[in-house]
Amino acid sequence: MQLLEALNWRYATKKMNGETVPQEKVDQILAAAQLAPTSSGLQPFKIIVITNPELKSKIQPIAMNQSQVVDGSHLLVFAAWNNYTAQRIDNVFAHTAAERGIPASTFEDYSNRLKGLYLDRPAEQNFEHAARQAYIAFGLAIAAAAELQVDATPMEGFDNAALDDLLALPQQGLKSLTLLPLGYRDAENDWLVSQKKVRMPKSVFLSQIA
Amino acid sequence: MQLLEALNWRYATKKMNGETVPQEKVDQILAAAQLAPTSSGLQPFKIIVITNPELKSKIQPIAMNQSQVVDGSHLLVFAAWNNYTAQRIDNVFAHTAAERGIPASTFEDYSNRLKGLYLDRPAEQNFEHAARQAYIAFGLAIAAAAELQVDATPMEGFDNAALDDLLALPQQGLKSLTLLPLGYRDAENDWLVSQKKVRMPKSVFLSQIA
Repeated sequence: MQLLEALNWRYATKKMNGETVPQEKVDQILAAAQLAPTSSGLQPFKIIVITNPELKSKIQPIAMNQSQVVDGSHLLVFAAWNNYTAQRIDNVFAHTAAERGIPASTFEDYSNRLKGLYLDRPAEQNFEHAARQAYIAFGLAIAAAAELQVDATPMEGFDNAALDDLLALPQQGLKSLTLLPLGYRDAENDWLVSQKKVRMPKSVFLSQIA
Repeated sequence: MQLLEALNWRYATKKMNGETVPQEKVDQILAAAQLAPTSSGLQPFKIIVITNPELKSKIQPIAMNQSQVVDGSHLLVFAAWNNYTAQRIDNVFAHTAAERGIPASTFEDYSNRLKGLYLDRPAEQNFEHAARQAYIAFGLAIAAAAELQVDATPMEGFDNAALDDLLALPQQGLKSLTLLPLGYRDAENDWLVSQKKVRMPKSVFLSQIA
């Protein structure tokens, strides 16, 4: 199974060699993230693709100085909606109706139900829900990179507030979640590449009720 | 690219035909989830695989009576740790050290840093962090099912507290997150199968900083 081979090949690359990932492959990785299923199809997140060297250099110190931030050719930032709003919900269903060539009113009851569910909840609760959806796309981007033999390092270890300020995310109603530098492993200088991939055994990870 | 083909083939199946998914395919779907990268490798979640018909029948009414809960042959429940604990962290690093044939003390500084980070935080904050990791695995299980042409329906629409009670999850230090019934589409009776898959355009979903 190709996905399992890819997931066994990948690892959280600690040292990248600076080679540039072809745009065609980056586009496929982003397409996988775009196809992620999300709750009610709201896709409540955004991916910022950073190739600008100066900006990557500014991000490295607020990301625990991890070298992949600058040694990867493309730095993906996953950021979730800071809240659900009527406008955001309406935009999604207007787009879906237009794409399907049906009246927007088709979704009126459904979107009203979502507004009833979300709009009275605390922003923090809605952000956490949006963040979970973004992590589905994050997983699919990681899988797509692996299938293309592009190395990627999932990162949560950075100063979210500092990155949000640097990228002006609050002005866009977004909060940063994760980083995903894309590049190629520097196998000779990466201590982790030779380490056995370990996961908890099925006896811990799974339970069956037959 | 096989993953993109699979993601375009899949959809949130609304009507399943009751056929049984071969165990070999279920095992591959679970293996993909097991290979998901997680923060510090803690894999802070569990997957409960339910094939018992009576139990699936009890779950359907607390899952908005969605028919896939009983028409899918295997119902996966993704549940996250309700908190991080020293014991849970120690278990993971003890297992990793044993698998790599290195002394457990190798990870002592690292695991102490994690304990310093997590153990003083509110349980709710740690649960939300664990939940995000589980959603990476959830995404990979959805992708694996699609690659195997197994239909799957990602579901958040259920009564979490009722399901937690039914599965005795609190006693295991777990809280339910999502359901993923596995089965096969009943194309003739599924209104959604013929609908165009719609995602927000790149102009909304992406931004580039070059």
